[in-house]
Amino acid sequence: MASFNLFLLPGDGIGPEIMVEVKSILSWFQARGVATFETEAGLVGGSAYDAHGKAISEEDMKLAQAADAVLFGAVGGPKWDSVPYDVRPEAGLLRLRKDLGLFANLRPAICYPALADASSLKREVVEGLDILIVRELTGGVYFGEPKEIVTLENGEKRAVDTQLYTTHEIERIARVAFDLARTRGKKVASAEKRNVMKSGVLWNQVVTKIGKEEYSDVALEHVLADNCAMQLVRWPKQYDVIVCDNLFGDILSDVAAMLTGSLGMLPSASLGAPDAATGKRKSLYEPVHGSAPDIAGKGIANPIAMIGSFAMALRYSLGLGEAADMLDKAIANVLASGVRTKDIAAAGQNAVGTKDMGAAIVKEL
Amino acid sequence: MASFNLFLLPGDGIGPEIMVEVKSILSWFQARGVATFETEAGLVGGSAYDAHGKAISEEDMKLAQAADAVLFGAVGGPKWDSVPYDVRPEAGLLRLRKDLGLFANLRPAICYPALADASSLKREVVEGLDILIVRELTGGVYFGEPKEIVTLENGEKRAVDTQLYTTHEIERIARVAFDLARTRGKKVASAEKRNVMKSGVLWNQVVTKIGKEEYSDVALEHVLADNCAMQLVRWPKQYDVIVCDNLFGDILSDVAAMLTGSLGMLPSASLGAPDAATGKRKSLYEPVHGSAPDIAGKGIANPIAMIGSFAMALRYSLGLGEAADMLDKAIANVLASGVRTKDIAAAGQNAVGTKDMGAAIVKEL
Ligand SMILES: CC(C)[C@H](C(=O)O)[C@@H](O)C(=O)O
Ligand SMILES: CC(C)[C@H](C(=O)O)[C@@H](O)C(=O)O
Repeated sequence: MASFNLFLLPGDGIGPEIMVEVKSILSWFQARGVATFETEAGLVGGSAYDAHGKAISEEDMKLAQAADAVLFGAVGGPKWDSVPYDVRPEAGLLRLRKDLGLFANLRPAICYPALADASSLKREVVEGLDILIVRELTGGVYFGEPKEIVTLENGEKRAVDTQLYTTHEIERIARVAFDLARTRGKKVASAEKRNVMKSGVLWNQVVTKIGKEEYSDVALEHVLADNCAMQLVRWPKQYDVIVCDNLFGDILSDVAAMLTGSLGMLPSASLGAPDAATGKRKSLYEPVHGSAPDIAGKGIANPIAMIGSFAMALRYSLGLGEAADMLDKAIANVLASGVRTKDIAAAGQNAVGTKDMGAAIVKEL
Repeated sequence: MASFNLFLLPGDGIGPEIMVEVKSILSWFQARGVATFETEAGLVGGSAYDAHGKAISEEDMKLAQAADAVLFGAVGGPKWDSVPYDVRPEAGLLRLRKDLGLFANLRPAICYPALADASSLKREVVEGLDILIVRELTGGVYFGEPKEIVTLENGEKRAVDTQLYTTHEIERIARVAFDLARTRGKKVASAEKRNVMKSGVLWNQVVTKIGKEEYSDVALEHVLADNCAMQLVRWPKQYDVIVCDNLFGDILSDVAAMLTGSLGMLPSASLGAPDAATGKRKSLYEPVHGSAPDIAGKGIANPIAMIGSFAMALRYSLGLGEAADMLDKAIANVLASGVRTKDIAAAGQNAVGTKDMGAAIVKEL
């Protein structure tokens, strides 16, 4: 039986509660002989800061590097709003992305028919929606240098961030997007601001070239990022795969997620390049939603995005596509049977807690 | 009778068609003795490039500098997709903003009850929506240096844009937002990415300070830009005034505009600082929509955003608030009476062309 080594980083807020439910799923698959999962847990974000003053420790970074996959909950909360910039909760997540080289962030936005009414958009606009945002995750304004605040002679301050992309960085994320489009609707929309940003000009050129030379079977469209945000609100079903830089991806994927009306449902995968020797990719899986400090500890958080992130891990990192299918199907069946956590319950509908939702999915398996 | 000097830059695509309708409105006000309007027209964007190889000429820049207000249509279109970066259509608009010092961009997003069904969002989510996005317009990644593409030794390219803000730039846009909030719902939401960008950290600090020291009567909330985009989709009525930087403003204002379901309706104003001697502000007024090359020349474009932009000019630059009220009211009445251009007509509803909509508004006046 194959054995995998998973590193769990529940983080802050509702992170720990939803991670518990992934553990039940793990145990179920292990008991059924699908694989052996060895898990270790670490601290990240505010909880790591509280424990040892950093957003993630060197030791935990080593465990993340060594794992077959990292499962990540969520970080942040008002408690840590005024900790120094370098050790703020998000720094832990950003360091994981950067040091593990997780340049490709896959964010599916799927609207489950059973939940279409939870969207603020009209049912016909979102029903059946299935788009995939492929976000560059280790470059751009998130990591470019200089990134600093300096005090000028007149006492004023000047803050600088640097948006920076190289040909290579754009090529590799474009290939990820085109490859995934081939397994789906064969359409890629590339979003940038080439009318204002030089990085947008280069982005546009490189994506065009890769599309033409390597993926002539995939339809490529270019869209300005502001217009893309608009189009997502107007008629999102026009898109299949959207590829964009780190900052635009941050915003566009949040818009796309909100369209579905069920943020608590959406998983994500962050992948590195395949290792030259082993072909293995470093990877981290996390829900698209945040740490939701307002409902943390109440046992009412929706664990589905976290469990769905584990399904993505089964598929993309562990080579257990069948198990992933089973798990995705179990989630869909539980939803179809009417089980709802508070965030996705219609007015008047009964809502179950985090544990009950986890248990319902295990039972369905 | 007061006399004003307006500089018209119709630009590309539907720009010229909708500007014609503003001229009828001008003439009407002039004939009624409200004021004398001297107009001159220039070229900007692709049409300027076609005429003389630049996105705006030095002569037209001088006329823009001298005008009491600039009325701007729209620029761009596929025809100019491959002109050199420095003379692309948008360069004309960006130069106007920068050289005239138009740092404050006001973008109201109003959902007219008669048009709420045109939105892709549910009626209850957008009906009665009235938010104002105050976007910083002369700083940030739009203008920061370095902004370049360089070829590296290995033949790859590297593109750089620079996001840059100083205390002063943030202070003055914050004051515009707070001042406007005082005339409205007394609430400001400031959007940035302080968890990732140093410019977001400074933005947050400066807005907080101005709010506390000068506007304690206005409620101030901070929201991460990605979350703000989400919240706009989820429940936009939670906002009154949103203040943000140039790039976030570009995207958030487009999302807000699309919520209303009637992009063809939304005007915008771009204002400079009051002149120390005369108190006058440089200003430019433009519709939020673009040049819509697909419908250009067909006589079906909606002129209301352009006409509404002129109403903003009457109010903010010419001190003719009463005339502005009249014009806004005429627009609302015409809509209430059921006159619709194609973009805002419901299925099965008759649509009129650009000229008829303009004429209907003049008649209503
Ligand atoms: C927590 C934060 C640093 C992060 C980001 O900005 O990338 C989050 O918004 C996300 O999208 O994963
Ligand atoms: C045309 C373009 C340069 C412009 C911008 O990015 O500012 C437009 O999108 C806008 O919002 O006015």
